[in-house]
Amino acid sequence: MGTELLTLFCALICYSLAEITENVAPPNIVIMLMDDMGWGDLGVFGQPSKETPYLDAMAAQGMLFPNFYTANPLCSPSRAALLTGRLPIRNGFYSTNAHARNAYTPQEIVGGISKEEILLPSMLKKKGYISKIIGKWHLGHRPQYLPLENGFSEWFGSPNCHFGPYNVNVRPNIPVYNNSEMVGRYYEEFQINKKTGESNLTQIYLKEGLDFIRRQVDVRRPFFLYWAVDATHGPVYASSSFLGKSQRGRYGDAVMELDYSVGVILSSLRNLGIASNTFVFFTSDNGAALASGAKEGGSNGPFLCGKETTFEGGMREPAIAWWPGHIKEGVVSYQLATVMDLFTTSLAVAGISPPDDRTLDGLDLTPVLLNGSSVSINRPIFYYRGNELMAVRLGLYKAHYWTWSNSWDEFKSGINFCPGQEVPGVTTHEQEEHTLQPLIFHLGRDPGEKYPINVLSQEYKDVLRSLSPVVEEHKKNLLPGIPQLNVCDFAVMNWAPAGCEKIGKCLKAPESKPWKCEWPH
Amino acid sequence: MGTELLTLFCALICYSLAEITENVAPPNIVIMLMDDMGWGDLGVFGQPSKETPYLDAMAAQGMLFPNFYTANPLCSPSRAALLTGRLPIRNGFYSTNAHARNAYTPQEIVGGISKEEILLPSMLKKKGYISKIIGKWHLGHRPQYLPLENGFSEWFGSPNCHFGPYNVNVRPNIPVYNNSEMVGRYYEEFQINKKTGESNLTQIYLKEGLDFIRRQVDVRRPFFLYWAVDATHGPVYASSSFLGKSQRGRYGDAVMELDYSVGVILSSLRNLGIASNTFVFFTSDNGAALASGAKEGGSNGPFLCGKETTFEGGMREPAIAWWPGHIKEGVVSYQLATVMDLFTTSLAVAGISPPDDRTLDGLDLTPVLLNGSSVSINRPIFYYRGNELMAVRLGLYKAHYWTWSNSWDEFKSGINFCPGQEVPGVTTHEQEEHTLQPLIFHLGRDPGEKYPINVLSQEYKDVLRSLSPVVEEHKKNLLPGIPQLNVCDFAVMNWAPAGCEKIGKCLKAPESKPWKCEWPH
Repeated sequence: MGTELLTLFCALICYSLAEITENVAPPNIVIMLMDDMGWGDLGVFGQPSKETPYLDAMAAQGMLFPNFYTANPLCSPSRAALLTGRLPIRNGFYSTNAHARNAYTPQEIVGGISKEEILLPSMLKKKGYISKIIGKWHLGHRPQYLPLENGFSEWFGSPNCHFGPYNVNVRPNIPVYNNSEMVGRYYEEFQINKKTGESNLTQIYLKEGLDFIRRQVDVRRPFFLYWAVDATHGPVYASSSFLGKSQRGRYGDAVMELDYSVGVILSSLRNLGIASNTFVFFTSDNGAALASGAKEGGSNGPFLCGKETTFEGGMREPAIAWWPGHIKEGVVSYQLATVMDLFTTSLAVAGISPPDDRTLDGLDLTPVLLNGSSVSINRPIFYYRGNELMAVRLGLYKAHYWTWSNSWDEFKSGINFCPGQEVPGVTTHEQEEHTLQPLIFHLGRDPGEKYPINVLSQEYKDVLRSLSPVVEEHKKNLLPGIPQLNVCDFAVMNWAPAGCEKIGKCLKAPESKPWKCEWPH
Repeated sequence: MGTELLTLFCALICYSLAEITENVAPPNIVIMLMDDMGWGDLGVFGQPSKETPYLDAMAAQGMLFPNFYTANPLCSPSRAALLTGRLPIRNGFYSTNAHARNAYTPQEIVGGISKEEILLPSMLKKKGYISKIIGKWHLGHRPQYLPLENGFSEWFGSPNCHFGPYNVNVRPNIPVYNNSEMVGRYYEEFQINKKTGESNLTQIYLKEGLDFIRRQVDVRRPFFLYWAVDATHGPVYASSSFLGKSQRGRYGDAVMELDYSVGVILSSLRNLGIASNTFVFFTSDNGAALASGAKEGGSNGPFLCGKETTFEGGMREPAIAWWPGHIKEGVVSYQLATVMDLFTTSLAVAGISPPDDRTLDGLDLTPVLLNGSSVSINRPIFYYRGNELMAVRLGLYKAHYWTWSNSWDEFKSGINFCPGQEVPGVTTHEQEEHTLQPLIFHLGRDPGEKYPINVLSQEYKDVLRSLSPVVEEHKKNLLPGIPQLNVCDFAVMNWAPAGCEKIGKCLKAPESKPWKCEWPH
């Protein structure tokens, strides 16, 4: 073949490839975020009842991440981190009212996600994506903070947790929104029977998800579905056809219904012929809420403590990636990864460059997902509690610079984030500083953080030598965001959300009397 | 078709069927028994490092039993129960020297498996099976108690644990037998480097297993292989090609090598064309030895405590059944099952009636294995510690009639069977009697035995009403065997095992001075 002919041949191939690339719509993205579900709640992660056949099958068809982390042991900061790709300390989802406190967005919170932050759905618009959030938002409930003001085109769900029912003279029940207007409230139009645990909310969220997907397929538009369901958050609920079906009581029933729903969504993607063009990621917002007890709390498997703590049980999450034809089947990835990577990875999947005007904590995991290679083997995991860096993981080692379970006062009143798991000197009830001599654990041979490495050993010295510069570097370059979770006010509660007048659900707000929110742990 | 013709037709079919049945050799049986490996040590049971690809594949190709139990939280009684199908309290593998003590067969033990007991290999001889034990025997090391005196035709391994090295003037190193004669001793001919953890014993045991299987295939003889390897028992060891390869340190290296070996054995069965005629069962003798610390002890996943205790961590075992073409692939069975079922099930697989002159505790699991049905849904699990029935499980409920971790003296000296897991009132350091009001747990929603059910609740009363008659019935009908583990004597140690003279390995025994063995926990 002559050189010219070869060039022409290549040009033709390149042209066709370019055309193919042009014609293929960017992949759809589905992030399934569970609420307070623990690492140990899935069969594939060792739940003894093995009652999650659909999630286990998802793992068998996709990639399992046993070293996946949230950005915070509590819901709001974790969700803000997922959608911004940034640690809460950067995006403002923390409080400086007291040292190392977990803060979130109850309905008396004044703040919410800052306008300075760029959320994933806003970025995805650049490539024509339409985005929907189904379920819990939790990044602020005042009008300017709601999902449709932050890049989402659709929303079905609620701004806060489904706590209640409340005395509505004192505190309104949490509204449920359909897009920009409320369509009812929990315990009013949207029932959760706290006695029986019955609620059909998961079924509603499932149907909303399937409808959204089908509509986008019809109009051939790439979509981002953020399916943020909350049945495993207390008060735990399930619909009548799942209640009493699991070996684990009500919590297990909720898990079974979510598992089933995941199965339905994945098979719907297959049936619609878009499975090979849809990147799906399943994870949870923080560790299981062990303080809720055996009936309302999940399992963190072999890990120490749970939600609210920076031990592994508080921040290690179940995680499965699924993308038939792109992600190899049945692979376990040892990559250290976080919910913030979902921001960066989703952008990479969509072919969009990440914002370059700010520090991002998320990594692009597509090399891991698509080629099975690992990225940044030495990427650290930062465990923050409010404004304090409590611990850092590097490789298989984790160093605790501060330890705290909760205060003696709380502990004595029966609130226990580590039931049955007290490790002397580790699960402390004072905030204990170890910055000069951190407690170091080898998470490979000691995933339960029970055996601190002897400070006199060579191993300890070696680990500290590699960890210290990472921590110093991080602290030196850290620009904390303006803390959004400092001010509370009963006047800002969900008294009269948009649309309330149409359904006669407006309540009268009290006078504004802001105070410094109290975060007890 | 006339009646006569039909009869003839049927007779022909029956004749052919009978002939087929006659011609098919009874299935081979392979029991792979691990040593101190915990429920949580396999990827499929939730080990975070997910480093057991061959066992996970075995589960995917077979049946997983998340509710599988040993008969005792310690090695010797558990192994005696497996081979006799009877609880240690019946077969004599316990001590009455003190209340509720774990006893086993160190080399100063005088007793061993009673001649009154019938062991699985003896039964299997009825159908022409040849049986080999590879690895640890542990049912008594005096000549009359050895494997070849108890139904096995071949043995490669040792009668006791691979503790050592000893000062041979005081205590002989443990011999390694090839059939009826010793061929060396640990730390002498069979090295275990306690500093590096290197030993090629697992490779030797693997090769012995493969050789045995190949030889039986050559002579077309049905076989029973009891592969009782011990690399995960302290001092933990692995061969050089596995050392340093796992994320879990030396213990994980040992697990990886065993996992690899299981994979080699299964693929050898396939390559030899006998996979569909070989029933394989993988399990462990007791829970992981948490008292051995992070470097030498395994994981019991979400369960409480470990080896030596009657909490779930001490007695719930990893368990996988594999029999291509007979056991459906990828099934999870919720059947409550025990190592004693392996006796009865193996007999059923071989087509041999179990002994009818004694109480058997094992059930025939073949309906579960072959048809996926469950047998005796309400079969109880009995948790014994020495001569005491500590706890009983029925369905998802477990009642503790006695609780004990270990004594205060032991605990204060640093021996901890529940590190990082003290549950007040549950992991007690006194032997606490609860026979009048047992501690009851729901193992579905509380697999970690952390939340005793309120004794004033209706649930508690209902459970007790169904449990009490089961316990009464068991106690009423129990005929304890003569306790074999009461007497110790330095004179009976492995000074001069058969064959020692051939290799110059005979040592002189001291004078006999029997004493009442002390069992501290």
